Amino acid sequence: MKKINIGLIGFGNIGSGVVKILRDKKALLSEKTGLDINIRKICDQDITSKRSVSVDKSLLTRNPKDIIEDPQIDIMVELIGGINPAREFIAQALKRGKNIVTANKALLATHGQELFLEANGRGKNIYFEASVGAGIPIIKSLREGLVANKFNSILGILNGTSNYILSSMSKEKRTFSEALKEAKNKGFAEKDPTLDIEGMDSAHKLILLTYLSFGRLVNIEDVFIEGISRISLADVNYAKELGFEIKLLAIAQREGEDLEVRVHPTLIPEDHLLASVDSVFNAIYVEGDLAGDLLFYGPGAGQLSAASAVVSDIVDLTKDIKAGLFRPMMNIVQDKSVKRLRRIDESSSRYYIRFTALDKPGVLARISGVLAKFGISIASVTQKEKSKSQLVPIVMLIYEAREKDLRRALNMINRLEAIKEEPIAIRMEEV
Amino acid sequence: MKKINIGLIGFGNIGSGVVKILRDKKALLSEKTGLDINIRKICDQDITSKRSVSVDKSLLTRNPKDIIEDPQIDIMVELIGGINPAREFIAQALKRGKNIVTANKALLATHGQELFLEANGRGKNIYFEASVGAGIPIIKSLREGLVANKFNSILGILNGTSNYILSSMSKEKRTFSEALKEAKNKGFAEKDPTLDIEGMDSAHKLILLTYLSFGRLVNIEDVFIEGISRISLADVNYAKELGFEIKLLAIAQREGEDLEVRVHPTLIPEDHLLASVDSVFNAIYVEGDLAGDLLFYGPGAGQLSAASAVVSDIVDLTKDIKAGLFRPMMNIVQDKSVKRLRRIDESSSRYYIRFTALDKPGVLARISGVLAKFGISIASVTQKEKSKSQLVPIVMLIYEAREKDLRRALNMINRLEAIKEEPIAIRMEEV
Repeated sequence: MKKINIGLIGFGNIGSGVVKILRDKKALLSEKTGLDINIRKICDQDITSKRSVSVDKSLLTRNPKDIIEDPQIDIMVELIGGINPAREFIAQALKRGKNIVTANKALLATHGQELFLEANGRGKNIYFEASVGAGIPIIKSLREGLVANKFNSILGILNGTSNYILSSMSKEKRTFSEALKEAKNKGFAEKDPTLDIEGMDSAHKLILLTYLSFGRLVNIEDVFIEGISRISLADVNYAKELGFEIKLLAIAQREGEDLEVRVHPTLIPEDHLLASVDSVFNAIYVEGDLAGDLLFYGPGAGQLSAASAVVSDIVDLTKDIKAGLFRPMMNIVQDKSVKRLRRIDESSSRYYIRFTALDKPGVLARISGVLAKFGISIASVTQKEKSKSQLVPIVMLIYEAREKDLRRALNMINRLEAIKEEPIAIRMEEV
Repeated sequence: MKKINIGLIGFGNIGSGVVKILRDKKALLSEKTGLDINIRKICDQDITSKRSVSVDKSLLTRNPKDIIEDPQIDIMVELIGGINPAREFIAQALKRGKNIVTANKALLATHGQELFLEANGRGKNIYFEASVGAGIPIIKSLREGLVANKFNSILGILNGTSNYILSSMSKEKRTFSEALKEAKNKGFAEKDPTLDIEGMDSAHKLILLTYLSFGRLVNIEDVFIEGISRISLADVNYAKELGFEIKLLAIAQREGEDLEVRVHPTLIPEDHLLASVDSVFNAIYVEGDLAGDLLFYGPGAGQLSAASAVVSDIVDLTKDIKAGLFRPMMNIVQDKSVKRLRRIDESSSRYYIRFTALDKPGVLARISGVLAKFGISIASVTQKEKSKSQLVPIVMLIYEAREKDLRRALNMINRLEAIKEEPIAIRMEEV
């Protein structure tokens, strides 16, 4: 039986999961592929700490060159994460004729172009199923299963930490900071959760999904990113009363000839499937011109879930290697009906807005006056009961308005004497 | 550019969709594959009626041999449906070295073994993504994306017609026959809807999903099949009051060393994602040992949706043909931890039961007495208000009981004088 040699860089949580699966499922995988998938070398800075799998010491090395420069290794699996040195390791391995499997969304979202070009030029592939939605086969589905589709939109709940916090606020009525603390206690949030709760992780994943669906590797600077740290329990509750859940959505959406690529908290109708995605689960809602509206749902993180995706990439590559051919990953084709990226201030949306005002006559009239001046129409208003501070929350849903107009209107309203806190505005998505 | 020739047998609704996509997306597909996918011949008994696409007359034939025996044709797409003559056409085409794409679940579920063996022996493939869930890439996901997973269960809403009817009963409060009539008017149900509403279509699809996930091509006689025609609006409403939706589920589930394969109406908790799958949509809920609980959702039917899946199969095959190699579809590997199929009367489940009884003292005592005799425990009882007929509905949820015991208990209860209609029992699934 032909042996396919794997070199693994990064023997952390997911790396250990990959080793475990390749070992536990060895018989199954060789029966399915007709190949012996063999782990030849594992590289990590730390090769002494105990892992969830035990491996023979002879497999371990601290020197990445033992993988990159070993001509017997067919596939390098990169699971160290972060930009450097992963970027150099992958570039060097490609130059030496290796195929790559990685879960590194941050790297591919920021330096994908150079790496994909390098791979293509050398007849090698970079597979990255585990980089979005862990074990959910969304990348294979977009690339192969939906190969003939043109996409109108992709809406994703892509960050488990944020979704856990928002679910906990909505279901358990926890405040943001209570929910974050709980997430940390349960291991669902990092010590420094900034990348997750401020939307950067979702943005990286969104860039990869946009690449696969619209054929453009968008710069991170061109993605509008707003996290969930300003979402209060009050807003979650008011949204719920109005029939909505607040979710951190990553959205790539066609608007005429423009493409909008953005990450932000979003009110979605409670009867939409995305509104039912709770806890650390991820989901991707895809609108294809042929296949229609599809949803892919599953755990967005987890050792074995992510490792399941890494192993499926390894198997796909082994099949090509077995055939002794370069069969490049489905070429990514740019959607030529998309002419440009639309900047956020040109985008339009419905909005949920909460004002905090003194309970005085005429306040509502003044607010609506300013909105009217900018051509913004109110769909509904609810004035809530006064809190002890004598301030009243005024919750409005407005009809579609341009971001730019709304921002200017809110600035003006914020300067009204009766307004005591900066207004909160959250986009609504009609899905 | 290398040309791949397609022969299409069956120029109906989906067939026209395939022709439309291969034509409209020709540039996209050749950019993605580097190949010219060319329709060389289209065969149908009727080659005169107008279709949704117009094709050159020279492409059309009434003689299937013009495709089966044409050595220039690489891939035969079979979209005539039904067992015969599709079975002969596919067998003959395989013998002549063609690869097959089909949407024919009835054929594969009943004669898959002989056809898959024939294909395998000749180094050819049969792809069938469109046979389950139309454009949802569930088959590719099970076969490739989740390649290393062992499955614990698959629960599917696989029949759009039945789901439309049940949704319409639940949301619009229509009776079964009103909902069926409406489905027919909207084109969501066939003139003779038996295969759909009695569960046979779901069973065929379930057999294919079971094959992919447990590696066994189960005989249709070994699948327990119960349709939705006995579900009444009253049951839908009572279930809803108790926090459940009734769905027609197709289930393949591991129970110890046994495998249960069954299709029946099922109460599922209203907060489960499957409960939110409405109208003609399909969804497949998969429990993998590595990837965790996944849901795949999308339109379960529709010309372009199904054709999208057919085209993705064609593209997968063209890539292999381009490489000039036989790369058999991922070998289906039998899950050896499954020792046998469990017959329905040995299976256990929680149940919703509705009795229709005379409003007399002691009736409830007699019913519960019989249940207790068979070791069946009641979880909750609701006695509804009397109807004009002086009969009262008694709705019970029972704890897990063996089907065999329950059937015997219900038979005995049915013979009680106070019981005026045959009791209704619907399984509950704790997902």
